[in-house]
Amino acid sequence: MALIVQKYGGSSVADADSIKRVAKRVAEARRAGHDVAVVVSAMGDTTDELIDLAHQMTPLPPQREMDILLTAGERISMSLLAIAITSLGVEARSFTGQQAGVITDEVHGKARIIDVTPSRISATLADGAVAIVAGFQGVNLETNDVTTLGRGGSDTTAVALAAALHADVCEIYTDVDGVFTADPRIVPTARKLERVGYDEMLELAASGAKVLMLRCVEYARRYGVPVHVRSSFSTHTGTLVTDQPAPTPEEAPVEQPMIAGVAHDRSEAKITVVGVPDVPGKAARIFGVVASAGVNIDMIVQNVSAARTGLTDISFTLPAADGAAALAALDARQPDVGFDSLQYDDTIGKLSLVGAGMKSHPGVSAKLFGALSDAGINIEMITTSEIRISVVTRADSLDEAVRAVHTAFDLDAETAEAVVYGGTGR
Amino acid sequence: MALIVQKYGGSSVADADSIKRVAKRVAEARRAGHDVAVVVSAMGDTTDELIDLAHQMTPLPPQREMDILLTAGERISMSLLAIAITSLGVEARSFTGQQAGVITDEVHGKARIIDVTPSRISATLADGAVAIVAGFQGVNLETNDVTTLGRGGSDTTAVALAAALHADVCEIYTDVDGVFTADPRIVPTARKLERVGYDEMLELAASGAKVLMLRCVEYARRYGVPVHVRSSFSTHTGTLVTDQPAPTPEEAPVEQPMIAGVAHDRSEAKITVVGVPDVPGKAARIFGVVASAGVNIDMIVQNVSAARTGLTDISFTLPAADGAAALAALDARQPDVGFDSLQYDDTIGKLSLVGAGMKSHPGVSAKLFGALSDAGINIEMITTSEIRISVVTRADSLDEAVRAVHTAFDLDAETAEAVVYGGTGR
Repeated sequence: MALIVQKYGGSSVADADSIKRVAKRVAEARRAGHDVAVVVSAMGDTTDELIDLAHQMTPLPPQREMDILLTAGERISMSLLAIAITSLGVEARSFTGQQAGVITDEVHGKARIIDVTPSRISATLADGAVAIVAGFQGVNLETNDVTTLGRGGSDTTAVALAAALHADVCEIYTDVDGVFTADPRIVPTARKLERVGYDEMLELAASGAKVLMLRCVEYARRYGVPVHVRSSFSTHTGTLVTDQPAPTPEEAPVEQPMIAGVAHDRSEAKITVVGVPDVPGKAARIFGVVASAGVNIDMIVQNVSAARTGLTDISFTLPAADGAAALAALDARQPDVGFDSLQYDDTIGKLSLVGAGMKSHPGVSAKLFGALSDAGINIEMITTSEIRISVVTRADSLDEAVRAVHTAFDLDAETAEAVVYGGTGR
Repeated sequence: MALIVQKYGGSSVADADSIKRVAKRVAEARRAGHDVAVVVSAMGDTTDELIDLAHQMTPLPPQREMDILLTAGERISMSLLAIAITSLGVEARSFTGQQAGVITDEVHGKARIIDVTPSRISATLADGAVAIVAGFQGVNLETNDVTTLGRGGSDTTAVALAAALHADVCEIYTDVDGVFTADPRIVPTARKLERVGYDEMLELAASGAKVLMLRCVEYARRYGVPVHVRSSFSTHTGTLVTDQPAPTPEEAPVEQPMIAGVAHDRSEAKITVVGVPDVPGKAARIFGVVASAGVNIDMIVQNVSAARTGLTDISFTLPAADGAAALAALDARQPDVGFDSLQYDDTIGKLSLVGAGMKSHPGVSAKLFGALSDAGINIEMITTSEIRISVVTRADSLDEAVRAVHTAFDLDAETAEAVVYGGTGR
């Protein structure tokens, strides 16, 4: 019998009936003899409703108070789930992040877990009861205040708890059947991956795949926690994220595919700094200004200098949400940095091809560029890592680009197999 | 400048606009130079909605989980209030019962406060900030679990916090202007009391006056906390509950009225045990059985024994909510205790006349009975204490009885002065 950590997102516990369904699923796992700890998000839209209430008070509420406010959401879902499980005859107790020993730093709104000391959870499991733990929240021991982990926080709670409990597996229940070779809403013939390595999953998450958040995958890789991404709406096996991406010969007699999948991201924008003097140190100055505004840069392209003018253009991508801050920072330093003007473009899309197999396969980038060219899609920027190639296209040709690349790399299933069940939790 | 604890009930923080209004009031008190700690209940119907959600899971949810669930309510209202106050330029921080040092016993659902260690609240006030504290909740240190205090719990939190902080006054904001000589909904000419003693307030609360809960008044009396009951919808002075009920000569040159007020209670029922053998020890047996069912008895009447039969009837009143439990307990022991039958009557009403002044005034009960007799109202049971006389009447003549007694004791104001503003909080 195994020790299992299960995580259910907001759409899985959206209302009373959903909670009852999750309770049944948890009770079954417990009755099968497993030790079960469950991490839950807030019910459905609770978090957004609480944020809305706070914004009715003031546009910029203090983060400490926002954290207290938002943690009420998991408090409600976790106690209701414990009540529902108990009513099925299986003992269950719920615990806040603090009670579960989720210790974080003091950064309200996006705290990082620095330790998990789950003695109450272990004691509960030893009693034969199911332990329910509030996702997304922890406590800072210096201030004794509650903190929240930011977007994707509940996934991170689940993986961190699984690591601390030395769980056999961390099951992340979501509204899709697992990790797919592409977003099934864009590529109906996308295939579900049976397994995927931590590194590939990291690149997929960083490149826009929303099924798992980057921080959660980083945590799983660091502590070697096997993560099973699966649907809370079906009993299908999902995708196992592990450090052993290759199936054993018995499991899969065919060769492991070279490519894990095609991710896409519409959340970035491009800033072009026009007319930069082509002298050493200018690029460093520009990116220094952007960094000092707290903005992370993704891709960079420097055009060939026009020899006649001695000026060049530098383009980079960044989260569109940080666009205004970056522009303001650059604008304020224009005389100092020295450039002609700024251009801003938030109608770009990024496509990323990810696969550990591509390291040893030459010609991957040639095939990618060929597929996009055949589809008549223009490439504006390119970056590569050992297991990823990313290109920037126009936003309105991104879907077509994803489909073209998916087909070119033989990722299509014979028929559409993915089902998307609902919204996404936090 | 004073140290003030203010308590706002659910109807005072029912929605975003109400919270903003409360925030303004708190900010004014702080700007006037006072140290201000605020205790809040959950917003409006939040508690009832959470209870309803739990009952959708199972009719009898575990009390530990119910406490976790319900404490989410104050978490939301307290953080929103802190946000609203901060947005007015006055620093404010919110604290859960646990963070505020409200230590209770382990009885989930109706825990008793055993200590308050408000070091974080004191530190916050010393910083010049307003401290917001969740009412109705605490923590049990043996289990490290949250507890709730039951009905009226937020008032008790406020008084206990005021006692621990050695506050100058505990202001209980409610939806009426203070404590009245009778319920203004029944007696439109009821007068607001300027002051009332702890003992009289205790008797009024125990006799059905709902403006303050019994436990809160007990706590205030034990620790000598002056309580100012006032409206959150107006700026009128309310009623001061204190151990100095008599105004000083400068404050009130006229004689202190003999009677504090007339309370009424419709929540009791009457059980009559018919045909009890009139031998010593039978009454003790009956009340022993009822007590063992966890039921508190209020009034008792034993009829004169009919000499012919050697049997008597014993009637007693009890909370109607406990009626079924008491009947079942008695029924189960019928052969053992020895009686003919049981009668149950939940259409009774109780009127109580309360006043420290009546101790030294003879003829109070004669005047009371005369007023009821003149109004044609039959008295079924009577009990008295030094400062209270209670009578049981038919439920449907209770309102008329209250008005008749109110008039007979010269309590009527010349015109209606009470305004009732809304629902009641917890």
